[in-house]
Amino acid sequence: MVQTVGGLEVRAKEELFINLEPLQRGGIMPAEARKAALSYIDGYSTCDYCVGTLHLIKKPPIANFLEEVAGFLGMDFAILTNGCREAKFAVVHAITKPGDAIVVDANRHYTSYVAAERVGLAIYEVESTGYPYFQIKPEGYAKAIEKVKAETGRLPSLVLLTHVDWIYGNLVDAEKVGKICEEYGVPFLLNTAYSSGRMPINGRGLKADFVTCSGHKSWAAGAGTVGILAIRKEWAEKVIKSSKEYKVKPIEILGCSARGSSTIALIVSFPFIKERVKHWDEEVKKARWFSSQMEALGDIKQLGDKPHNHDLIRFDTPAFDRIAQKHRRRGYFLYEELLGRKIAGIKAGKTKAFDLSTYQLTNEQLKYIIDSFKDIIEKYS
Amino acid sequence: MVQTVGGLEVRAKEELFINLEPLQRGGIMPAEARKAALSYIDGYSTCDYCVGTLHLIKKPPIANFLEEVAGFLGMDFAILTNGCREAKFAVVHAITKPGDAIVVDANRHYTSYVAAERVGLAIYEVESTGYPYFQIKPEGYAKAIEKVKAETGRLPSLVLLTHVDWIYGNLVDAEKVGKICEEYGVPFLLNTAYSSGRMPINGRGLKADFVTCSGHKSWAAGAGTVGILAIRKEWAEKVIKSSKEYKVKPIEILGCSARGSSTIALIVSFPFIKERVKHWDEEVKKARWFSSQMEALGDIKQLGDKPHNHDLIRFDTPAFDRIAQKHRRRGYFLYEELLGRKIAGIKAGKTKAFDLSTYQLTNEQLKYIIDSFKDIIEKYS
Repeated sequence: MVQTVGGLEVRAKEELFINLEPLQRGGIMPAEARKAALSYIDGYSTCDYCVGTLHLIKKPPIANFLEEVAGFLGMDFAILTNGCREAKFAVVHAITKPGDAIVVDANRHYTSYVAAERVGLAIYEVESTGYPYFQIKPEGYAKAIEKVKAETGRLPSLVLLTHVDWIYGNLVDAEKVGKICEEYGVPFLLNTAYSSGRMPINGRGLKADFVTCSGHKSWAAGAGTVGILAIRKEWAEKVIKSSKEYKVKPIEILGCSARGSSTIALIVSFPFIKERVKHWDEEVKKARWFSSQMEALGDIKQLGDKPHNHDLIRFDTPAFDRIAQKHRRRGYFLYEELLGRKIAGIKAGKTKAFDLSTYQLTNEQLKYIIDSFKDIIEKYS
Repeated sequence: MVQTVGGLEVRAKEELFINLEPLQRGGIMPAEARKAALSYIDGYSTCDYCVGTLHLIKKPPIANFLEEVAGFLGMDFAILTNGCREAKFAVVHAITKPGDAIVVDANRHYTSYVAAERVGLAIYEVESTGYPYFQIKPEGYAKAIEKVKAETGRLPSLVLLTHVDWIYGNLVDAEKVGKICEEYGVPFLLNTAYSSGRMPINGRGLKADFVTCSGHKSWAAGAGTVGILAIRKEWAEKVIKSSKEYKVKPIEILGCSARGSSTIALIVSFPFIKERVKHWDEEVKKARWFSSQMEALGDIKQLGDKPHNHDLIRFDTPAFDRIAQKHRRRGYFLYEELLGRKIAGIKAGKTKAFDLSTYQLTNEQLKYIIDSFKDIIEKYS
């Protein structure tokens, strides 16, 4: 029987399953953050002691938190946004104008493209190396900037790099891209939706002008959605500029953004985040072990960086696709076999290739997952 | 001793106090919504069964909910946004261009102005009638539109009306404004942040092209923030247009907006909302009774519509300001006297004038509040 709450199915994905969904593994909230979010769950709960704008509120300690976050990311200022995409759009909208050019990587999240499209930019792409590694080479940015110069007579208004992408979990050498941007004098936005909150980030060291972060994706902050826009002080005036009429209201976030318990979740999860990024090397080690074990099952090939540098891993999986071809449930068989083994998060219908995340799973859980995949292959062989 | 959760003070404003904060009274979540929001509190919890874009998801029943909401508001389509301000900006950004003119009312929320400013519009204002009623007369819109025509040679690209404003709680005759817009052929955005979710709204009847709503302000949906943008079908193509590259991702909401438990809160609170709007006349009755009782205390004057048509009420309060002048705590005395009587939500330091909301308070609670104000006046007389 399905258990319901308020007419909806109770969501107990973390309680009843091992969840491999890369979108969700970094957004699982620790108990303290869940409790605090519930305490602040009513509308405008952050605004009991409003001082005119969300990011300056002292109680709850939003202003102090943001100051700490700026330091944590190696940047000068940080403000809250409704999410990482909204942080990207805020920058794009603030510093570019329709017809300008932007350079983005081929592995970008769709929202990087849509943010640029919403402003009306010409989008230039840095190609990946293609199958099987799909890497973004920093040198590609120099080439793309030159192309913009040649075709438009001007430099691009912004360069965007997806630090770790959502398809292959590839980690790009952001510092090299930062240096190229510095040499050309082009502002550099580093999208860390899959990196900050999981691994240590030093924006200044990477020569980033802007660092955008996803609270609900990688900072263990759910409730609604929430993001962070961290910037270097040189850009503060342009990007956090206030309304002419309303002096404490930054235009690019329409005054105040995540004015509710998602911000509370972000604050309460922060000590947990500061601790967990110290153990990133262990996460990479687990991911590499997992990848090698998957390939050892036969006819499975890990794509992207090799050795891998992130918990998000994509596999080509002919081993499963062959079974699907003959199975009465076709592509759905794998999803269902896994669910039966209490493993969730591989998208229904995917058997040719799929991505998953090993983030914060234990060695025992990872071993159980490998055994389960092995079991499924053996069942149908 | 202050109780804490995750290092933050536990928020128990609704549990320990009668809360009069107009920003918060319509965003208090019913128990079922709190429970459901907690069940879906992890990051991207709405996206377990993603179909490419948030507003089309079937499980949880987001698509179905939005269809119902469109009907409930008397509109053709509804999509989720991060909040009401984000819904307004989506419309402004989609249908106007820098240099265009917009007509707004003088009682507008600051975000209506900032949304227009962010796009670079020329902002024309419909004046209010000034002290003491501060009403927006629909005829003022015809005058403002004529002014735009005379000064720019073109019609404004958009007209925005604040259905119920945040300062005086005045309810404007939106249908008359809608008719004026229809006659001029100018699109009409109705900001219902303080009306929909509290009182019945029929967007089509009011001749609105766009209705923007605040989940956390008036639809009992907290968690993070969440809004609704409801539109007439004639505008769907322009306002919900998709990315050229990503066909299921609407540009103006960057693909997906409130992808977390704030949307769950909105869905689960909806049956409660449908029921409560039926009792709006009782809320108006309570507000009027409260206003008359306040004025009967002497040297207190209700501003705005009279008789009043909304639970948000603003008072000029020389009765309290006189006490403040002589009190060692000055303006803070009233805040502290009220807190001592377990009444919260009148801003600290306000004694010359303040606003409050009577929304969903019982007759007994309202009587207790009146008695408390009386008690405070007597204590210092």
